[in-house]
Amino acid sequence: MRTDLPPGHVALVGGGPGDPDLLTVAAVRLLGQADVVLTDHLAPDCATFVRPDAEIIGVGKRPRSTDATAQDDINRLLVEHARAGRRVVRLKGGDPFVFGRGGEEWLACAEAGVPVFVVPGVTSAVAVPAVAGVPVTHRSLTQGFTVVSGHVAPGDPRSTLDWGALARSGTTLVILMGVKNLPAIAEALVAGGLDAVTPVAVVAHAFAPDQRVLRATLRTAAAAAEGVRPPSVVVVGDVAALALG
Amino acid sequence: MRTDLPPGHVALVGGGPGDPDLLTVAAVRLLGQADVVLTDHLAPDCATFVRPDAEIIGVGKRPRSTDATAQDDINRLLVEHARAGRRVVRLKGGDPFVFGRGGEEWLACAEAGVPVFVVPGVTSAVAVPAVAGVPVTHRSLTQGFTVVSGHVAPGDPRSTLDWGALARSGTTLVILMGVKNLPAIAEALVAGGLDAVTPVAVVAHAFAPDQRVLRATLRTAAAAAEGVRPPSVVVVGDVAALALG
Repeated sequence: MRTDLPPGHVALVGGGPGDPDLLTVAAVRLLGQADVVLTDHLAPDCATFVRPDAEIIGVGKRPRSTDATAQDDINRLLVEHARAGRRVVRLKGGDPFVFGRGGEEWLACAEAGVPVFVVPGVTSAVAVPAVAGVPVTHRSLTQGFTVVSGHVAPGDPRSTLDWGALARSGTTLVILMGVKNLPAIAEALVAGGLDAVTPVAVVAHAFAPDQRVLRATLRTAAAAAEGVRPPSVVVVGDVAALALG
Repeated sequence: MRTDLPPGHVALVGGGPGDPDLLTVAAVRLLGQADVVLTDHLAPDCATFVRPDAEIIGVGKRPRSTDATAQDDINRLLVEHARAGRRVVRLKGGDPFVFGRGGEEWLACAEAGVPVFVVPGVTSAVAVPAVAGVPVTHRSLTQGFTVVSGHVAPGDPRSTLDWGALARSGTTLVILMGVKNLPAIAEALVAGGLDAVTPVAVVAHAFAPDQRVLRATLRTAAAAAEGVRPPSVVVVGDVAALALG
């Protein structure tokens, strides 16, 4: 894994699920070299890892906020800072390639001739269930897991997922950004063949002081999660009934 | 994330996909406190992170080897070392809860009354495709990804996966431990409805000096991967045609 950051280069760095201790050694080393860090609101606080003269720019896109910095603006900022000869770290919550739009940022840099590389991070899709004591795989229960974005509801024409097939896949389902659409998602999974008493765990605000874990079933999940606000992770499957921790 | 390791405690620690720079800060801190480390052959070399007097025990289960240390023996070793008052780190390749049998080790400790906790790591399921330039999600291509173990072939009575449903799910498929069964897997996915020209990437020996990336389609994947030896990761889906890096 590359950990040197020359002037004019961009490193797309996974920051993990929010706890600074879940940054990688590579991430810490790259942050220490950065002239400028573009960070998300779900990435860990990086102030203690950068040089005193480094610039930290928050570019987080909060759901439903009006002060969102659009993705095009982020891409433009990455290219501009690199072209000005700065060492640029783009610090992202979780892993850059798991709903992180890291691929788009990589392409924007490459198309502008800016050298760019990716450093994987601890993905929230696995780590957030884990802090709630839920293993996404468990030998006697499942041979796989599926991670999907729930921000587009089942049945929405923009959805490219087949929720019926997901219900029948035999894998644990990990749904990110899915609390708002949880009633429709639970309904689609039961319609697809999952038992209504399939265990569900909802982990809200993981790694934050107000972390909460709700246990339910597909039948009761929507009611149980009423009032839960993002960010949250929903786990569906037999492993969601475990509580290892 | 907990990073103190008192005597008699066991920490199940994700070591990431093999490069020591992808260890987390928490993992490094815990390794520095360990009296004994039980490590896998896919975990990064931890010798430089432990105290000079710490004991490192290799308990890796290599596929098809005869000197395998059975899981029961590993569980017993964890409990015995902890009961002897040692600070125990169980260092695992990738993440402890992604086909790591971390849940079983957690249960074995808990049933023996040994305090145990889990520290997530960078999972190979995401990081290995990434080093080959393949993002498991990409905005215009897919809204999710599925990670399965391919060590049980489709149609085998021990399989709990529905490969036809996986083919129709709309997610990127990441198959670990699947090279041996790749001919049967590719056939099952095409039978399930995936196009025979769906892109496939096979990443062998990631993060090692002999890392190789093969590009193919479902139709050609089995022939292309002939002779590839474990460990390897197979990615199926439109993202497998990308090469960001």
